[in-house]
Amino acid sequence: MPTEVLLLVNQAAGTLTRADPEQPHLSVLDWAATRGDGVFETLSVGFGHPQAFEHHLRRFASSAAALELPVPDEQLWRRGILTAIEALDPVEEAWVKIVLTRGIEGGDGTPTGWAYATHSADYTRERTEGVRVVLLDRGYRHDVARTSPWLLQGAKTLSYAVNRAAFREATRRDADDVLFVSSDGFLLEGPTSTLVYRRGTQLFSPGVGLGILDGTTQANVFRYAQQLGLGTAFEQGTPDTLRAADAAWLVSSVRLAAPIRAIDGVEFPVDAGFTVQLNDWLRTLTQ
Amino acid sequence: MPTEVLLLVNQAAGTLTRADPEQPHLSVLDWAATRGDGVFETLSVGFGHPQAFEHHLRRFASSAAALELPVPDEQLWRRGILTAIEALDPVEEAWVKIVLTRGIEGGDGTPTGWAYATHSADYTRERTEGVRVVLLDRGYRHDVARTSPWLLQGAKTLSYAVNRAAFREATRRDADDVLFVSSDGFLLEGPTSTLVYRRGTQLFSPGVGLGILDGTTQANVFRYAQQLGLGTAFEQGTPDTLRAADAAWLVSSVRLAAPIRAIDGVEFPVDAGFTVQLNDWLRTLTQ
Repeated sequence: MPTEVLLLVNQAAGTLTRADPEQPHLSVLDWAATRGDGVFETLSVGFGHPQAFEHHLRRFASSAAALELPVPDEQLWRRGILTAIEALDPVEEAWVKIVLTRGIEGGDGTPTGWAYATHSADYTRERTEGVRVVLLDRGYRHDVARTSPWLLQGAKTLSYAVNRAAFREATRRDADDVLFVSSDGFLLEGPTSTLVYRRGTQLFSPGVGLGILDGTTQANVFRYAQQLGLGTAFEQGTPDTLRAADAAWLVSSVRLAAPIRAIDGVEFPVDAGFTVQLNDWLRTLTQ
Repeated sequence: MPTEVLLLVNQAAGTLTRADPEQPHLSVLDWAATRGDGVFETLSVGFGHPQAFEHHLRRFASSAAALELPVPDEQLWRRGILTAIEALDPVEEAWVKIVLTRGIEGGDGTPTGWAYATHSADYTRERTEGVRVVLLDRGYRHDVARTSPWLLQGAKTLSYAVNRAAFREATRRDADDVLFVSSDGFLLEGPTSTLVYRRGTQLFSPGVGLGILDGTTQANVFRYAQQLGLGTAFEQGTPDTLRAADAAWLVSSVRLAAPIRAIDGVEFPVDAGFTVQLNDWLRTLTQ
C-alpha cells in the first residue's frame, strides 16, 4: 500500500477520483496557484482514525463561508477523507489535507478540490524536548476580524505566505516556532498552531474572537484536561501573562502538543510528565 | 495563432517549454497551491511591446528576495516573456503573467515557474466612466513593512485572498474597486492598483515605504506628467487629502488608469480629457 494517496474531489460531479500524486493535476490558472484563493484543513490520523473529524469539517465549512466559496459537500469530503485513509499504508500517525479552491480563472465556477494523505514525520524531538518560540507582531489589532472581515482572519486560507515567512524569521532568531502577538499586544496563535498554557490547576487558550483559528487540537486538549479535573478557560492574555504561566504548549493536529521551552531566547519551564501523558492521549484518539 | 500561450519556466534547467494551458501542469504539492508561497508580476503588452519591462523584472526580483526564494534568472524570464508575446495572436492590448513559486513540498528545492500570456479584456468602460471605490481598512499600520518584514507587505506574493475578499466587499457596498487605508489612517493602494491623484498642477501618489507596491504604471504616469510639465511627488496622505484632490485614478498594468468617480458612495470629479490622453499614451508605450 502506498505512503501517499491523492483523491481529486469534484464537488460539481460529486465524485472522488484516485490520482497519482507525482503527476500534475492543477491548472496554472487555478485560483489556488495564482491568488492563494481557497481553504484547507489538515487532519491527523491516529492508528487509522481521523481525529477531531467533525471539528475539522465544521471549520472547513466556516473558512469556505468566510471566502464565499461554494459550500463544501460534507458527505463527499467525509467520504474522501475516509477513502484516502483506507487506501494509505497503515501507520500509527498519518495526516490528510483537504483543499477547496475557487476553481479556474475564467472557468465555469466549479471549485477545485483534493484530499492528500501521507505518513507523518517523526515529531518525537519537538514533543519531548520542546520548541523555542519567538513572539512576532501579527500586524493586526486583536479585534480586526470583527471590524474588517475582508482581512479573512480566523479563516484557514491558502494565502499562508506570511506564516511561512514568520517561520523563516524564527530560524533567523535561532528559534523553532512563532507565537503571533496582535499589534495591540495580545497573545494570538502560532503560524500553524494554537497556544495553550497552564497556570495553577487551569489550562488557558486565547480562544476565538481574536481573529485566530478555532483550534481543533486545543479543543481536545481542553477535553483531556477536564477529564483530569483541571479547569479550562479562554483568556485574552499578553506576553506577560504567558511568561507568568507554569507551562505552555503550541498544539496542532499533526505535531500535537509541543512544549514551549524558551520564549524570545529566555528559558521557560517544560512540564515533561504532563506533556507525555497528553501526547499519548492525543495520539490514540479515535475521534 | 493562439489567444493564450503558456511557457513553463524551469530555472534549474534554464529552459522554457511551451505547454497547453488547458492541461494541468502543477502538483497539488506545489507551495503555490497549498500556501500561496510564491511571487508574480503581470505586465501589459501594448501593440506587442511589454510595458515597464525593466521595472516589472526589478520588482519580481525584489518580491522573490522578500520571500527568500531563489533569485529569478533575469535573462530566462526576459526571454520567457518575449517568447510568450511572440507566440500570441497579435492584438492591441495583451498581458503576460509571470509566476515563481517555492516549488514542491518535499521536493528538491527547484522553484516552479511559468509565463502565461493572453489578450486583455475590454476596459473601455472603467477607463472612461471610471470606478466607484470604497475605502477599506488594510489592518496594518503604515510602517509595518519596516517594523515587521515577515508580513511581506510590499512584496507581490501569491497570497492574495485578502485582495480578492476586498473586491467582494466592494461589490457588497455597490462599488467597483477598493482603496486600502492603513490602520493609522493613511492612504495605501488598491488590491491590484496604485493610487494617483492630482491637486492643482501636481500629481501625487503614496509612494513606497508604506508597505505597498512600487507601482510600475504609477511610475509611467509620473513620467507622462513630467513630459507635460506637471509636478509629481510622493505624499503620505489621508482620506481627507484624497477628497480634497481635483481628480484621482487607480492605475495598474492591464486596466491602465481608471478614474475614481465616487468615494464611499460620494460623487468625485472625473477629469475625462486628461484621462483619455493619459490612457492613449499608456496604451501605446513601447517600453
